Amino acid sequence: MSRVQVPPAAMVPAPLSARCPPCGRDTALSYPSRTMGRMTSTPRSDLDPAVAARLKRGADGLLPAIAQQYDTGEVLMLGWMDDEALHRTLTTGRCTYWSRSRGEYWVKGDTSGHYQFVKSVALDCDADTVLVKVDQVGAACHTGDRTCFDADELPVSAPADMA
Amino acid sequence: MSRVQVPPAAMVPAPLSARCPPCGRDTALSYPSRTMGRMTSTPRSDLDPAVAARLKRGADGLLPAIAQQYDTGEVLMLGWMDDEALHRTLTTGRCTYWSRSRGEYWVKGDTSGHYQFVKSVALDCDADTVLVKVDQVGAACHTGDRTCFDADELPVSAPADMA
Repeated sequence: MSRVQVPPAAMVPAPLSARCPPCGRDTALSYPSRTMGRMTSTPRSDLDPAVAARLKRGADGLLPAIAQQYDTGEVLMLGWMDDEALHRTLTTGRCTYWSRSRGEYWVKGDTSGHYQFVKSVALDCDADTVLVKVDQVGAACHTGDRTCFDADELPVSAPADMA
Repeated sequence: MSRVQVPPAAMVPAPLSARCPPCGRDTALSYPSRTMGRMTSTPRSDLDPAVAARLKRGADGLLPAIAQQYDTGEVLMLGWMDDEALHRTLTTGRCTYWSRSRGEYWVKGDTSGHYQFVKSVALDCDADTVLVKVDQVGAACHTGDRTCFDADELPVSAPADMA
């Protein structure tokens, strides 16, 4: 499956309207960047409308999505999904994210062969986070590590009576 | 420990400046909400500057933080941390988040008794996500469920040859 490069509707924010204090007239301003865009409508997607209506997306239209190895419990990585990425994850059997850096849908494994075969998908209690249990082929991390959290542990200095 | 209600510096975005097309004059506009604020400087925090310099925060100055039960591997919840919340998590032994809805620091368990005692903390390969392995007291979810992902599984309809 090739990558699809159609930007989701959520990524096209409505223009910001504001009144100019010096002249008192309304003016339309563009957002400086996508990350400042506030969604004003539900993005176009084939996602079940009943699910879409419950999602609490970030200002950029995305939800954080945690990928976890279904049998060992390893937390593999965190990616981002819009409605359509969630829809494709639910219906294609392969975990699909929205790449914020490349601005395109991203089927995990399409380049590396390191697919994430979907076992189950759950929303959290606030419907603002996705947990995808997967069977990860090979390394989840682009560095070659099994998970994206293997290489950068921070020092913890907890009081002894609390640890 | 009581909740600390000092908003982090990251939450105070610089004003947006724009030229008014009708009158041609510059004008300063406020962001409609915090979620549209773009960080313009590193927030004030006691976090190790070497760690702070590596963090890739969202536009709101926050990182997603995954809490995982250290021995069973259960993914318990996802919260948000700014630099100071990460610093407190690393140094107090108890997981501390920034509550986006309440606009305050939030020591998990201070109200419910359902503390998260910190076992280890890791950044991911991009330094934009935190994984905290904890020992969770009781239920992680405010609904009383053990994890925030227990109650809302979505139907997966994967092709048989991929599942």
